[in-house]
Amino acid sequence: MYQPQQLLYEGKAKKIFSIKDYEDLLWIEYKDSLTAFNAVKKGSFEGKGKVNNLISNLIYSYLEKNKIPTHYIDSPTDDVLVCKRLSMIPLEVVVRNRVAGSLEKRFGLVHGSQLNSSLVEFYYKKDELSDPFISDAQIINFEIESLESLNQLKSYALKINQLLMDLFRSVGISLVDFKIEFGRLPDGRIILGDEISPDCCRLWDSETNFIFDKDRFRKDLGGVKESYEEVLTRLKEKLEV
Amino acid sequence: MYQPQQLLYEGKAKKIFSIKDYEDLLWIEYKDSLTAFNAVKKGSFEGKGKVNNLISNLIYSYLEKNKIPTHYIDSPTDDVLVCKRLSMIPLEVVVRNRVAGSLEKRFGLVHGSQLNSSLVEFYYKKDELSDPFISDAQIINFEIESLESLNQLKSYALKINQLLMDLFRSVGISLVDFKIEFGRLPDGRIILGDEISPDCCRLWDSETNFIFDKDRFRKDLGGVKESYEEVLTRLKEKLEV
Repeated sequence: MYQPQQLLYEGKAKKIFSIKDYEDLLWIEYKDSLTAFNAVKKGSFEGKGKVNNLISNLIYSYLEKNKIPTHYIDSPTDDVLVCKRLSMIPLEVVVRNRVAGSLEKRFGLVHGSQLNSSLVEFYYKKDELSDPFISDAQIINFEIESLESLNQLKSYALKINQLLMDLFRSVGISLVDFKIEFGRLPDGRIILGDEISPDCCRLWDSETNFIFDKDRFRKDLGGVKESYEEVLTRLKEKLEV
Repeated sequence: MYQPQQLLYEGKAKKIFSIKDYEDLLWIEYKDSLTAFNAVKKGSFEGKGKVNNLISNLIYSYLEKNKIPTHYIDSPTDDVLVCKRLSMIPLEVVVRNRVAGSLEKRFGLVHGSQLNSSLVEFYYKKDELSDPFISDAQIINFEIESLESLNQLKSYALKINQLLMDLFRSVGISLVDFKIEFGRLPDGRIILGDEISPDCCRLWDSETNFIFDKDRFRKDLGGVKESYEEVLTRLKEKLEV
């Protein structure tokens, strides 16, 4: 049905194509590569593109069922996503429930400790600046987004966080933090784009704190492939009829 | 009248003493030292403590006259300030009118360009963390300050900015940015503490963009002493009857 046409963009983890006769859609091929620290560290494992796409698609279907609008349309093969073409908002929206990563380092907080409430952060997407942390006041001052749109992003982010916490908790996983990205449809509506996978979440076993996400790659913990597959297996059991 | 008693604290640029019979006041001696980059770079010039204290006192009197409550009480000698004892809020409040310093570096913005509107930023005062930039949401989440207090700090910061811009403009200086700190009186009221001097402002000549502030020391531009003295001379002419 859908036929990829022209390669529009090749990123660290994806190839993006236009689709014949569907100007408002995109064809996204997930690659097997893994990168970290702004692409300074590179790796890959066989089937990584597939497992990420399958996890993300399960999550996006679950979010759609729970009234979160996403770009998801179809997945013609395991490593391909057909999605709505968006004008992307150049902000990484990070939601944190527990302390890890840059928050831990920047503020000297205790690794894994629970935050008083879920924390929404924005990072300005600019590879050449290493995606700097950016405040609401800066976003508005630099005219990246309006206060109204920022509030909409925060509201979506917190709703998605609640849904994902519930989902992951039900499969024995603690959602430590995650990064999402949003974009606009031609009519201006903001919807969820990009992906949600172990590449952009911190997922720890609820009992043992075993790490199931890209930190295994970042920190050379081994078992990256098996961990990503375990997340897929648990979500499939829960979400697939 | 006031007699310094016990040395309570010695910082990079000041010695702070208790005052005999005045428990609610502090005696602050300004030192001649200059530091930058979280005290990695060190220097000094003779009379630096005096010139900073004199500049700061002129500015604080001007702010008081314009209904900004400050800690200022008296200046028994040129390098000594007697001020109200505050419980300091551990935030550096930065107001920016033009692009320079960390904002320029972090977001790749054009040096010296005018911002769309004055920008208020907060930095968490922790030497061992190098005073990290902190968002409103983080300040509230970590219970450093409440939303209400943050809004009060922002409101004071923007009022002070307007007053300082007017003052410096009238003496041919462009106020690029500055850092201030606030504290609480025993009754809980928030007032302006610390100092306002070329150590914590960026001050450029309105015509020539000549730098009058600590960037001369940071960037080894020379003429640090003469520049600080020029700021004092211009403010004195304007503010002293």
